[in-house]
Amino acid sequence: MAKTEGPLILDGARVARDIKERLAERVNLLAERGITPCLATILVGDDPASATYVRMKGNACERLGMESRRIQLDRSTTTEQLIAAIRELNEDSSVHGILLQHPVPHQIDERAAFDAIRIDKDVDGVTTLGFAQNAFGFAAYPSCTPAAIMAILDDYGIPIEGKHAVVVGRSPILGKPVSLMLLNRNATVTVCHSKTQGLADIVGSGDIVVAAVGKPKFIRGDWIREGAVVLDAGYNPGNVGDVDYEECLLKAAAITPVPAGVGPVTIATLLKHTVDAAERIGSA
Amino acid sequence: MAKTEGPLILDGARVARDIKERLAERVNLLAERGITPCLATILVGDDPASATYVRMKGNACERLGMESRRIQLDRSTTTEQLIAAIRELNEDSSVHGILLQHPVPHQIDERAAFDAIRIDKDVDGVTTLGFAQNAFGFAAYPSCTPAAIMAILDDYGIPIEGKHAVVVGRSPILGKPVSLMLLNRNATVTVCHSKTQGLADIVGSGDIVVAAVGKPKFIRGDWIREGAVVLDAGYNPGNVGDVDYEECLLKAAAITPVPAGVGPVTIATLLKHTVDAAERIGSA
Repeated sequence: MAKTEGPLILDGARVARDIKERLAERVNLLAERGITPCLATILVGDDPASATYVRMKGNACERLGMESRRIQLDRSTTTEQLIAAIRELNEDSSVHGILLQHPVPHQIDERAAFDAIRIDKDVDGVTTLGFAQNAFGFAAYPSCTPAAIMAILDDYGIPIEGKHAVVVGRSPILGKPVSLMLLNRNATVTVCHSKTQGLADIVGSGDIVVAAVGKPKFIRGDWIREGAVVLDAGYNPGNVGDVDYEECLLKAAAITPVPAGVGPVTIATLLKHTVDAAERIGSA
Repeated sequence: MAKTEGPLILDGARVARDIKERLAERVNLLAERGITPCLATILVGDDPASATYVRMKGNACERLGMESRRIQLDRSTTTEQLIAAIRELNEDSSVHGILLQHPVPHQIDERAAFDAIRIDKDVDGVTTLGFAQNAFGFAAYPSCTPAAIMAILDDYGIPIEGKHAVVVGRSPILGKPVSLMLLNRNATVTVCHSKTQGLADIVGSGDIVVAAVGKPKFIRGDWIREGAVVLDAGYNPGNVGDVDYEECLLKAAAITPVPAGVGPVTIATLLKHTVDAAERIGSA
């Protein structure tokens, strides 16, 4: 039977605006103390999508009265050169947060580069140590997209405790950390991936479904349980998420659109972490 | 219908013996180089069960020709005093592995104490950083009980990839790391806990069930799917696991007994990590 009422569209653009409004006040208070929160972004190479993401993040900083320092490195940069650039930013007391745009070119040891970021400037939540702090529930800066997903759930007052959350994807910066965050909030969590058998049935058992796969329209409407909450962390070429939005709209109780869902809240979370870092470092 | 054939009893005592036999050769090779692998154990207070565990680990070292250094601290020890004792062992080049027996008395910040252990001596796999390295699949010393569970599965050639593993428990040294290890081996993993709703049904959907709850005979036979593989990481007073062994025996395809299941393999894993550390430090 078709649902007569439409689902709740989880408006990430509005959630992000609210976060940024609260941040604007804190940026003003920091300005009175002579502190401008500064996010350094590092882009290695010239991948157009990556360049766009970095630009969006830098612009978002500047619109909020924050500083954005943009480091552009040649696509042939070595791991050692990249780590040297990161170390310089670690030492620079005017830089409060460091974001290494990924993926990085293949010759670079991405994990080594992430882990070169000082933990108190790891506002993107990519370090190995930060991952575990988040897994144990005491990270200063959890990975931004997982944190954005939790922020949306909380903004809309969607209950998590005791619910069955199904996470599709297991990357170190998205699937794994969001699974652990949902677990720490007392969801029962199932993590699925490319080797999962019977994926549709498992997704269909989820009260909360998080799509973090990187494949356009991968999650189909007939997989979703009637009344599920669907969070789409995917962002594929053509402004398409990992969820077949039109199909899932017919089944879900609540759903994030793409664009204007998880994406803007991820950027707002990055800004929030950078302001947090500026307040911490500024008051140290 | 009752099963006519009995399940496979996963003989942890035998798996542990095999591991220790292989270790004995490596201990001999180290002895030729003048190196005796040394595990330092720290016991705070006089809890009889903890004292027994520490003694078992120390004795297991000595039976293998390894050294065991036993540090006994008063039950009123502060976090600072404990960390000072750990730092001394960190600096002591004759000590290759450090084990802090837990739980520690309530006045101690257990997490801070764990994280005072140098990562290259964290043979018990309890540090925050070690947890994340394990989550990402490159830890030198994963938490011992999870590693023991994986060793038993591998010893018996039990397939993991594509299977649905249900882990009951989410502690930082057992439920969470074993979930991530199963995930890294391509199982689909569901993590359950005290707030899980419909626990019996979820356990019943598991091809592999790991009990890490700390409640005697908590997992009942009628929860288990016919043909499941059941791993019992519990060890409760009276030599009873977290699984109702007699009941589950009638349903499982394979099951670990308690005692002589996961426990002895956990100790063998600790010894193995200590020998690994002695080889690494010895050759540095």
